Amino acid sequence: MAVYVVGHKNPDTDSVAAAIAVADLMNKSQSMGAIAAAQGPLNPESAFVLEKFGVAAPEIVTDATDKKIILVDHSDLAQSLENLSKGELIGIYDHHKLGDVTTSNPLDILVKAVGCSCTVVKMMYDCAKVEISKPMAGIMLCAILSDTVMFKSPTCTPADKEAVEALAKIAGVADYMALGVEMFKIKSAVGGTPAKDLVFRDYKDFDMGGKKVGIGQLEVVDLSILEPVKADLLAECKKVKAEGRHSVFLLLTDIMKEGSEMLIVSDDPSYVTKAFGVEVKGDSVWLDGVLSRKKQVVPPFEKAFA
Amino acid sequence: MAVYVVGHKNPDTDSVAAAIAVADLMNKSQSMGAIAAAQGPLNPESAFVLEKFGVAAPEIVTDATDKKIILVDHSDLAQSLENLSKGELIGIYDHHKLGDVTTSNPLDILVKAVGCSCTVVKMMYDCAKVEISKPMAGIMLCAILSDTVMFKSPTCTPADKEAVEALAKIAGVADYMALGVEMFKIKSAVGGTPAKDLVFRDYKDFDMGGKKVGIGQLEVVDLSILEPVKADLLAECKKVKAEGRHSVFLLLTDIMKEGSEMLIVSDDPSYVTKAFGVEVKGDSVWLDGVLSRKKQVVPPFEKAFA
Repeated sequence: MAVYVVGHKNPDTDSVAAAIAVADLMNKSQSMGAIAAAQGPLNPESAFVLEKFGVAAPEIVTDATDKKIILVDHSDLAQSLENLSKGELIGIYDHHKLGDVTTSNPLDILVKAVGCSCTVVKMMYDCAKVEISKPMAGIMLCAILSDTVMFKSPTCTPADKEAVEALAKIAGVADYMALGVEMFKIKSAVGGTPAKDLVFRDYKDFDMGGKKVGIGQLEVVDLSILEPVKADLLAECKKVKAEGRHSVFLLLTDIMKEGSEMLIVSDDPSYVTKAFGVEVKGDSVWLDGVLSRKKQVVPPFEKAFA
Repeated sequence: MAVYVVGHKNPDTDSVAAAIAVADLMNKSQSMGAIAAAQGPLNPESAFVLEKFGVAAPEIVTDATDKKIILVDHSDLAQSLENLSKGELIGIYDHHKLGDVTTSNPLDILVKAVGCSCTVVKMMYDCAKVEISKPMAGIMLCAILSDTVMFKSPTCTPADKEAVEALAKIAGVADYMALGVEMFKIKSAVGGTPAKDLVFRDYKDFDMGGKKVGIGQLEVVDLSILEPVKADLLAECKKVKAEGRHSVFLLLTDIMKEGSEMLIVSDDPSYVTKAFGVEVKGDSVWLDGVLSRKKQVVPPFEKAFA
């Protein structure tokens, strides 16, 4: 059985870069013949990053049947491959909360409460004493800058900053903050992109107290970029909710102002009040200081829905 | 909130030694103030090991409410503390299949497909560059010899053997195989122990396809030791099953003959046939070469019950 390394649905740069780097590490340290995969096409940011460092795009894989699987950047069934139980899960490398994936056999897992899966992968290279190539260093560096919103996210730890410093040296990137801004400008570009694609660009479904809840996030360097498309985004969220979800929330995150406007489409918006202590009037609320879905949005919603 | 490090219910030597060593490591590397705990009293083997290396017994803790928790040697809710969700789970260090424990927040996890949690803990000391003390080396050494049945178990890996070699040097144990035999003789002693205590000495409940299934294991240096108590053990298993379980299986493992007699108390013994391809007549079957519940008994039962 071939080994596939794969991140979550709606792959972001961390899911893509971690899958590629873990496959590289497994092949160099254990001759595993691992293949990097993603559950869907690359977003514009990830495409820019792979292009910049001359790395091939991962294979698209959506079903685990009869495959050996290594998961990166998630451990939730809802975010994972179809038919995960019909494959063999042999590893998980992640930086999120522990999800509902289970196995029948022992496996290898490394999860660290850091800002990015690629920071975990950097530790794995170091522990295995495998040299990191220039292209691998480049894409891992970008993943960490992206996931930590250039160190501004509350999920960012000293380990993430140390990893970026070390990876920038290997990749030969003199000014990594400039690279980060270049990357976030590409992420911010919405012109010509259908609203549906924007909603799903970084979207995850969660099971919260038995209710299906979708939470998407768009990060931009200036919220005004999204003004012209906001009505379309809301209409698209309503369609997504109508597919059988209790709620759909879309975070419009301004990484410079350091906060998020959250679009709300829900059977019961009082969960937003319960989770964040804010009054909900109309279709959205401003959440000051909220940059991280993982650390600042999912946990309060999980408590509210429990 | 105080941090407690705790292994599974019915603690064995690995659960006890790993909890003590992880607490030691966390306190030395991160000044965490962690307290080693166990969910019940020590079995005779563990008591012998701690006594031999002058290590204090862990505190008995059964409820996670308002505590920070680090789990060792398991990740199944059925084997864990009461009210795990009312505490905060901050770490898992294990060598089993991934169980159904989940969290709301990111945490640290290291799981390796090796023969013993203490082998994982040895790697953690090395990665953190913390020196292992003589007593910690002694109890970890014994845990690995116990969990791998002195390297005979199919769960044993080269990493376990390497860890034993290194730990024996630190602990000043010249002949670790002699220490292993001494330990297994204590484990084998059943004289005067109530049958109920024997059934629960190394017993775990599993949720298998919605059915509650209990699997116990007694390891002895010669199966004839158990002949006089076999009828009592079977009667005790029937009582345990009557408490609401679909099946109770008790493995009587002969570590010298390298196989197990399995006592069977079940609503439907055909699951044994499904799992092991053996015909069941009467109350027990001989499973040749079966030494490991984790690797050779739980996975086939999980498939059969699925």
